[in-house]
Amino acid sequence: MRTAICERLGIEFPLFAFSHCRDVVAAVTNAGGFGVLGAVAYSPDQLDTELTWLDEHVDGRPYGVDVLVPGKIDASALDRAVHLMDAVPDRHRDFVTHLLSKYGVSATGQPLTAVADEVGRRVTAAGATGLIDVALKHRIGLIASALGPPPPEMVTRARQAGVPVAALVGTVEHARRQVAAGADLIVAQGTEAGGHTGEISTMVLVPQVVDAVDPVPVLAAGGIASGRQMAAAMALGAQGVWCGSVWLTTEEAETSPAVRRKLLAASSLDTVRSRSRTGKPARQLRSAWTEEWDSGQESPGPLGMPLQLLVTEGAMARIEAAAEKGEQGALELVNYYVGQVVGQLRQVRPAKDVVYDLISEFGEAVDRLRRLSE
Amino acid sequence: MRTAICERLGIEFPLFAFSHCRDVVAAVTNAGGFGVLGAVAYSPDQLDTELTWLDEHVDGRPYGVDVLVPGKIDASALDRAVHLMDAVPDRHRDFVTHLLSKYGVSATGQPLTAVADEVGRRVTAAGATGLIDVALKHRIGLIASALGPPPPEMVTRARQAGVPVAALVGTVEHARRQVAAGADLIVAQGTEAGGHTGEISTMVLVPQVVDAVDPVPVLAAGGIASGRQMAAAMALGAQGVWCGSVWLTTEEAETSPAVRRKLLAASSLDTVRSRSRTGKPARQLRSAWTEEWDSGQESPGPLGMPLQLLVTEGAMARIEAAAEKGEQGALELVNYYVGQVVGQLRQVRPAKDVVYDLISEFGEAVDRLRRLSE
Repeated sequence: MRTAICERLGIEFPLFAFSHCRDVVAAVTNAGGFGVLGAVAYSPDQLDTELTWLDEHVDGRPYGVDVLVPGKIDASALDRAVHLMDAVPDRHRDFVTHLLSKYGVSATGQPLTAVADEVGRRVTAAGATGLIDVALKHRIGLIASALGPPPPEMVTRARQAGVPVAALVGTVEHARRQVAAGADLIVAQGTEAGGHTGEISTMVLVPQVVDAVDPVPVLAAGGIASGRQMAAAMALGAQGVWCGSVWLTTEEAETSPAVRRKLLAASSLDTVRSRSRTGKPARQLRSAWTEEWDSGQESPGPLGMPLQLLVTEGAMARIEAAAEKGEQGALELVNYYVGQVVGQLRQVRPAKDVVYDLISEFGEAVDRLRRLSE
Repeated sequence: MRTAICERLGIEFPLFAFSHCRDVVAAVTNAGGFGVLGAVAYSPDQLDTELTWLDEHVDGRPYGVDVLVPGKIDASALDRAVHLMDAVPDRHRDFVTHLLSKYGVSATGQPLTAVADEVGRRVTAAGATGLIDVALKHRIGLIASALGPPPPEMVTRARQAGVPVAALVGTVEHARRQVAAGADLIVAQGTEAGGHTGEISTMVLVPQVVDAVDPVPVLAAGGIASGRQMAAAMALGAQGVWCGSVWLTTEEAETSPAVRRKLLAASSLDTVRSRSRTGKPARQLRSAWTEEWDSGQESPGPLGMPLQLLVTEGAMARIEAAAEKGEQGALELVNYYVGQVVGQLRQVRPAKDVVYDLISEFGEAVDRLRRLSE
């Protein structure tokens, strides 16, 4: 299939795979799609290592990097704090400690304050700039901005390097703002998507964004994990699709066995848009964690971003480690960012098989539509 | 276009138009679609009048009737009350009185207790049976059940009359239950739809329901108001689409000028799933009414169904009348059940033009998909 975006990026099939795992990115890229590595969890040095590995494993095919550019983050609270955790109100720190204790989560890994310091560095504008510097040294074919308009410096430097800039949006207004800021490609993401997401569904959002930013190409995200869903997205006017959740249960995925079991067992009713992890609404598995923060009687309510991320990230790392050890309380708390398509994910498969099946089902869906309208 | 459901119902194009307005039902039916009259607002005698008018205005073409079958309604509270409003807690009645006063809504129309009595009769099982009796005396081609599985008696009598039974669902589990109860056609309705709606988006829900109830045909609802969206729904595996919101801004619609102005001005962010009108989550325009009930400090919180409907319906009728007179407070309170597609509705048009444009855009969307995959 050849859409304008296929021509522009030099790919065969406009299936974009967002993943935090380089193996997924490589597998999808090598199967004819376009892998995009989520870089937010990495330091610049770590990202350099990942991208060097990717350069060696995709045989010259283009892939992308996604950075979280913290558009509206108020860093003033952070500047005053020696340890970043000191900027978090006591009752929020106490609530996290209480949750870990109530659910009997064993203390492992780094001190929570050290994790907070590291997270704080990652989500500042300086952190994003460091990652962008590294990314542009590699043979990337796309750089994506996951939150807020791309900063002018990022656009300028990407243009100099000949790398298109993509931006994720959840409303028409954001799409217009992103294009004005220089985005070359818009990813219109519906509320059913995993991670940070808005309120408008993919079915409603995509045609509106396509019309609003024409002729800038639009990818659809949210609710897409099969060929039928991809065909639907293209019928809405998208030039391709951006999928994240479907890779979480692939053989290559970064997800731990305990999380993967939860994903495979979940229905489409088992996700929730919650501010309990990052401070911004993000769709994730419903778990004791989201229930305690969002409707628990003792909850202080989530903070904004980035403070909520600072106070929760270290605790979540502990919960994940404890869940892997089979601790019951941790298994109740642990969750993962995932979209409503989680209800379709029923087995662990190689990423390339997911790509091939998606391409094949896409063709069948288009054929069926064609026959219906003859 | 010929899907199995077109053959079964004898229609040209599988576009189902749900409307409370007979003029919309007739216009869509005569333009090649299939109109379905929402009967819940009518007494049996009124419904008989409406359907007689329809029989005279659709030239033998099939149309449908939608009744609200109150599956889980607890009528025990109602049985004890002389006036049904007596079953409503004082603080909820007081809050409604307070809202009408706070927003300066003038008192017109029936006493609130009389409206409550009438509403109570409509939403009981006996009320639904009376409507079904009337509907089956007319030349209807479909009877739809909007809440809960169709009662065995309804299925039996519809079968005897040769009329297929449709059922609206928001989850795979509900779809299975409806088919087990005898539904011949499933309407899988995503969270973006107007009125009573679940949490799962159309993009995610439809393929899951199609697979779960195969070979029972599925219509897609929620987020569909254009030919691109219809093509997307069909790509997901639906055999047709069920649209409601798009008719609210047609020339024929029952909506008052004040409501229509609000609909035309609204974006896709201006709806909310709220329990503030019926007691069950229903998507509607966000207004002072939904804000006061859902997050106002004085709100007692909504009751369940049908009590919330009893306490609010008369007040809403007053608000609508006052809004028509241009009262500012009433204009802030007034709203309407509508889906997220409200952001696409920008002008008042004849219903048949909406049908023709939808058919034409559907063809273009399928053609574009076909060209892409050549």
